[in-house]
Amino acid sequence: MTVEIKKIGVFTSGGDSPGMNAAIRSVVRTCAYMKIDCMGIYRGYQGMIEGDFKPMDARSVNNIINKGGTILKSARSMEFQTKEGRKKAYDQLQAAGIDGLVVIGGDGSFTGALIFHKEYNVPIIGIPGTIDNDIFGTTYTLGFDTALNTVVEVIDKIRDTASSHNRLFFVEVMGRDVGHIALNAGVGAGAEEILIPEENLGLERLLESLKRSKASGKSSSIVVVAEGDKTGKNVFELKEYVEEHLPIYDCRVSVLGHMQRGGSPSCFDRVLASRMGVRAVEALLEGKSSLMVGIQDNKITLTPISKAIKGHTKIDKELMRVSDIMTV
Amino acid sequence: MTVEIKKIGVFTSGGDSPGMNAAIRSVVRTCAYMKIDCMGIYRGYQGMIEGDFKPMDARSVNNIINKGGTILKSARSMEFQTKEGRKKAYDQLQAAGIDGLVVIGGDGSFTGALIFHKEYNVPIIGIPGTIDNDIFGTTYTLGFDTALNTVVEVIDKIRDTASSHNRLFFVEVMGRDVGHIALNAGVGAGAEEILIPEENLGLERLLESLKRSKASGKSSSIVVVAEGDKTGKNVFELKEYVEEHLPIYDCRVSVLGHMQRGGSPSCFDRVLASRMGVRAVEALLEGKSSLMVGIQDNKITLTPISKAIKGHTKIDKELMRVSDIMTV
Amino acid sequence: MTVEIKKIGVFTSGGDSPGMNAAIRSVVRTCAYMKIDCMGIYRGYQGMIEGDFKPMDARSVNNIINKGGTILKSARSMEFQTKEGRKKAYDQLQAAGIDGLVVIGGDGSFTGALIFHKEYNVPIIGIPGTIDNDIFGTTYTLGFDTALNTVVEVIDKIRDTASSHNRLFFVEVMGRDVGHIALNAGVGAGAEEILIPEENLGLERLLESLKRSKASGKSSSIVVVAEGDKTGKNVFELKEYVEEHLPIYDCRVSVLGHMQRGGSPSCFDRVLASRMGVRAVEALLEGKSSLMVGIQDNKITLTPISKAIKGHTKIDKELMRVSDIMTV
Amino acid sequence: MTVEIKKIGVFTSGGDSPGMNAAIRSVVRTCAYMKIDCMGIYRGYQGMIEGDFKPMDARSVNNIINKGGTILKSARSMEFQTKEGRKKAYDQLQAAGIDGLVVIGGDGSFTGALIFHKEYNVPIIGIPGTIDNDIFGTTYTLGFDTALNTVVEVIDKIRDTASSHNRLFFVEVMGRDVGHIALNAGVGAGAEEILIPEENLGLERLLESLKRSKASGKSSSIVVVAEGDKTGKNVFELKEYVEEHLPIYDCRVSVLGHMQRGGSPSCFDRVLASRMGVRAVEALLEGKSSLMVGIQDNKITLTPISKAIKGHTKIDKELMRVSDIMTV
Repeated sequence: MTVEIKKIGVFTSGGDSPGMNAAIRSVVRTCAYMKIDCMGIYRGYQGMIEGDFKPMDARSVNNIINKGGTILKSARSMEFQTKEGRKKAYDQLQAAGIDGLVVIGGDGSFTGALIFHKEYNVPIIGIPGTIDNDIFGTTYTLGFDTALNTVVEVIDKIRDTASSHNRLFFVEVMGRDVGHIALNAGVGAGAEEILIPEENLGLERLLESLKRSKASGKSSSIVVVAEGDKTGKNVFELKEYVEEHLPIYDCRVSVLGHMQRGGSPSCFDRVLASRMGVRAVEALLEGKSSLMVGIQDNKITLTPISKAIKGHTKIDKELMRVSDIMTV
Repeated sequence: MTVEIKKIGVFTSGGDSPGMNAAIRSVVRTCAYMKIDCMGIYRGYQGMIEGDFKPMDARSVNNIINKGGTILKSARSMEFQTKEGRKKAYDQLQAAGIDGLVVIGGDGSFTGALIFHKEYNVPIIGIPGTIDNDIFGTTYTLGFDTALNTVVEVIDKIRDTASSHNRLFFVEVMGRDVGHIALNAGVGAGAEEILIPEENLGLERLLESLKRSKASGKSSSIVVVAEGDKTGKNVFELKEYVEEHLPIYDCRVSVLGHMQRGGSPSCFDRVLASRMGVRAVEALLEGKSSLMVGIQDNKITLTPISKAIKGHTKIDKELMRVSDIMTV
Repeated sequence: MTVEIKKIGVFTSGGDSPGMNAAIRSVVRTCAYMKIDCMGIYRGYQGMIEGDFKPMDARSVNNIINKGGTILKSARSMEFQTKEGRKKAYDQLQAAGIDGLVVIGGDGSFTGALIFHKEYNVPIIGIPGTIDNDIFGTTYTLGFDTALNTVVEVIDKIRDTASSHNRLFFVEVMGRDVGHIALNAGVGAGAEEILIPEENLGLERLLESLKRSKASGKSSSIVVVAEGDKTGKNVFELKEYVEEHLPIYDCRVSVLGHMQRGGSPSCFDRVLASRMGVRAVEALLEGKSSLMVGIQDNKITLTPISKAIKGHTKIDKELMRVSDIMTV
Repeated sequence: MTVEIKKIGVFTSGGDSPGMNAAIRSVVRTCAYMKIDCMGIYRGYQGMIEGDFKPMDARSVNNIINKGGTILKSARSMEFQTKEGRKKAYDQLQAAGIDGLVVIGGDGSFTGALIFHKEYNVPIIGIPGTIDNDIFGTTYTLGFDTALNTVVEVIDKIRDTASSHNRLFFVEVMGRDVGHIALNAGVGAGAEEILIPEENLGLERLLESLKRSKASGKSSSIVVVAEGDKTGKNVFELKEYVEEHLPIYDCRVSVLGHMQRGGSPSCFDRVLASRMGVRAVEALLEGKSSLMVGIQDNKITLTPISKAIKGHTKIDKELMRVSDIMTV
């Protein structure tokens, strides 16, 4: 590789996820360890366009490993989707002497990175930061593990009150296109039924399952519903449908919403972020670009970003079967 | 007093709250300590009507002090609101030899208790179990403290993501008629504005406050809204109203819902429950009836249930002022 | 009052406690609201001597209400115990234009404040920040409630493993001179026995109680021991004593230590801190001095610091009785 | 395979770990789903010898997925290490009609299982339940993830107070022979130094590292020490050694102890337990024996128990390097 990296810019982009701060810390400290400069870029691509930069040294990331959110802020940028916007961003990077980038975000952020790299040849490495776990090339995205713990802790609380009143709760969790949160948190919370975007088992099956559940003597039931479930009904309509067809049930709805994105990261996500940040900087220093850091079989790997955003994660059939068996 | 109590029935009624199990444990163990019998009555007044009883000894309440919900279940009973229903309930108590009652619940449950006592002269003592803190005669109801912790922990998470995206969140918390949860959790979570049923400051003030907040350089804002706020708008309408009038804000809504009722009780609620349970049994043994156990100035007190349900709790003006000052 | 306060200095002193940051935030924001200047004094009295000051405005305390520890740091100062040290401190205050002080700390810090006020007549108001709850004139000190929750949550975990192995655990909690943490957390955690500095029931009673507990069919036992318990044995010696005299028990020790001082404050402590901070600043502006802000019967009160440090808190006899009854 | 399994016995053995209840639930419900009988065996091998059995149906494991500890209790059995003991155990299994076993425990429990299988040919499948993550053939043992979260949450609290007083804390975590908890939780908690049994970097390096840390401007430091660290000093001696050689540091010790074994399991451990339980029962029904269920590359696998107990887990060199870089 002919270009030697001297100053790395790091930024977070798209929806935030727990562990982003730990990843920023790792990138910053790895730069310090490697004795190269590091620049924080605020508010993702928009801040890049506006030159919203700040030099970061090892001490500037003290005490953030356990903080949710992102100290570099995140934002969507319409302007970066235009050629003019990207030109401005490149000029800002040039002016600041930034010659390598680490982007922490999801597939939207990665797509922008690829285009930018193609146009301006700035080396860029991605760290998959999203609670959805929907990125190909990594078994776990950063924040997924924490979000699962948040969801099961909340459902544990809902279960307390559900069980005290023999009620049925429909709990909506995040996941417009993928059901990883719903399936894992559903199994973890002991849900009676789990509705995900990847599979439409039909409303009949839901009613059957709930009837069986009642007959088996269970005192309460939790149905976990991903935002993008395929029943054709949202969670409130589902509740009404069930109340109409199974009047024995006293039903309630709970939409968990944005709390799933926040919170202090789990140890798993902190360690994952630390490992990924080191590898991202190393990859840049090795002259690599357009790769995403991932974890597979507990080893840190690199996957072309082009594959990461095109490939699809699959719902775990074995885990769906486990879920079925658990609700016997 | 002429009647000597030999067997006490304990039950939970109305919406459940954290600490109810700790209170049941305390009643049961105090009975054991005093060497009188104790009977658990399942599903509140409805279970009383149906004779759904179970003898409880000291060991039957092992390992429940830290559990949310109520092992005795709770339910609403239409039947108990009829003379026939109450007759059945009395007959069941007679048949089981229960000659004193401890009811753990809110004002609806207490009203039922008063009527029942008037008609059948069964001694009955109330323990205020509700997260709303809306019972006169006690500074804290059982479960209020835990619910506050649940709410601030969730808002802490929401704040992480709000602050990463410079967003404004409307967070709806429980409180149809009273704003105690909203006001206390709002102050505890550092909310920029708190909307409660007791006071309508008008939408103009809300807009002014949010404008000031933005101007002051805050990166995110949380508005805590009690269910029964008096703006005439629900939390979704509020969001739309603000987005329309303050387009600088990117707004989101989160409705916390039933998770507020569940969860392992705080130490405060466990201790409170233990103290109240002892006093409730003692009061029965002292020949008292129709009183509610409360806590005032850190001392356990007794208040006539008739006063407890008629009196009104007032919103704390000093705390509202503190809230105003904190959002400077 | 002849002196008009224009600039308030705020500092934390002695052992830290959860809620100190929330109190700092409240003092700073109340100053901003009242349009007077506020100066943060780092590292307590030592920082005062060294002139380690920093102006604080409303935004400088963003996002700290939920953080444990103290952003102003705390330290002990030998130098402040000398006349020369206090002279230096006064000169620094003069130079910085600080004409009123809010000290957040325990009785050691308050004693220093009184002497300093006597010598230099600088108005000073105290906020009781300590997890020990050992200050006269307030029902709750700042941090006590959070520490209780920390302790019961840890004992809940210990109970899991104790109960799986039918073991007896001795858990040492903070409290050299007072047993408030031990007694409250012990009741909250369902401890079988609680050993506190205020009362020596003797080792015989402990053995008796443990024998009874075993006989009653309990599968595990927790003995909560305050650091300053009066058995004459430390927690490890206690374990050995019991193992020797009651070989049926498989015993373990856990010393909770400093984790009890940290952690995100409970809602209770955050609200308490916010209220106390407002009152402290107000009291200074009203021309008052040498008073401590407290909470009694859920109302914010002022008590002469001289009383606060001389008076003794008493262990709650009623709660000790509750503890006895609960372990039936 | 000639033997058809009709009744499976499940038990927990050795030190307990979070997720054991979730694994029991999974085994019991998979049996119910497969329509074979399931028997809970209390107190591990000792209960097997004593015939301490209880039939378990799907409902008998309601509401335990989120509970720490083990409802089947655990114990060590000297008697099972004798031929006579194992003969008794076999006779009890025969008498109860148990023709297959699932053991949830660590390598000690697995060794017993192998011997028993060799002598009596009872099919037996192992589930690795231990917080130490020291079993070959699985990337994660059951309970490891939860223990890591417990440790980092506690160190987060300790960090609050350490940082308020500019102190150095030595935190001892579990791990007599392996440093997985220390290394992972140390990285997750942002520890300045991590001492593990697998590597002795010497006391000189520790002093150097602490000096550098102080010089770099860090306000507090955490040293995580595994029980079996190889410095030749225990955690209290380490503290004294550092205080003697680096008097600039104000040092404290915290020994986390048994709390690391308890607590509600993380979502990760609940899901892992559910998957492992299903596979264990399936393996028995497929006529397999003497295998351990594991997870590798997010897939459920089977490894001969003989390999699992002989093989050694290795400390992750890459993660040690990450740790070094993070403390720059």
